[in-house]
Amino acid sequence: MSSFADRSVPDVDDEAEAFDADMIERHLAHLDTDRWVVEDGWLVGTFPFDDFADALAFTNAVGELAEEAWHHPDIHLSWGEVGIEVRTHELEGLWEADFVLAAKIDQLYDADDG
Amino acid sequence: MSSFADRSVPDVDDEAEAFDADMIERHLAHLDTDRWVVEDGWLVGTFPFDDFADALAFTNAVGELAEEAWHHPDIHLSWGEVGIEVRTHELEGLWEADFVLAAKIDQLYDADDG
Repeated sequence: MSSFADRSVPDVDDEAEAFDADMIERHLAHLDTDRWVVEDGWLVGTFPFDDFADALAFTNAVGELAEEAWHHPDIHLSWGEVGIEVRTHELEGLWEADFVLAAKIDQLYDADDG
Repeated sequence: MSSFADRSVPDVDDEAEAFDADMIERHLAHLDTDRWVVEDGWLVGTFPFDDFADALAFTNAVGELAEEAWHHPDIHLSWGEVGIEVRTHELEGLWEADFVLAAKIDQLYDADDG
């Protein structure tokens, strides 16, 4: 399990800057890249489940995490799959908060699985 | 409140058939058409909320309803909005079950609001 997931999700402050392509690439390495890709400036994760109930439970877990971190992804719940889209609206891009949140979501999913 | 919402969501059986455009139009009249439209053969609903927590609570309520009815929409949860997409995969289209589920979702939303 990545220690990256144990960081706090930082708040956007005056020093926060959207990552460039190189920084994005380096931070992606902290995530499960079978699940996460960068698409149109969003960090997009796909999480398979056996049924709707498990997908709904994961949606709740991610929702609670988002409320705690005060960083809210879009969540797409369907039968057997949850899609997550992360981005920092204030920066119109991706930065540390997005990758830490994604790493925490990986950790949640792996804990459920295990 | 529409009595249509009080019907049971029917199971797909041998007699179930996808609705034609006229039947779709007539059944849309049972829904709140400020919220629901038909797009690419899906019944698509949009429900605004004040924040993420309320949108998450509504996602749960719709999820529980879907499990009870054993008819599962796709649900798109984001800050301040829940999008719902309903369709009957077995029929590759829309029929009564989709509109009854949508009417029940309207009822849930209106109950929360009231």
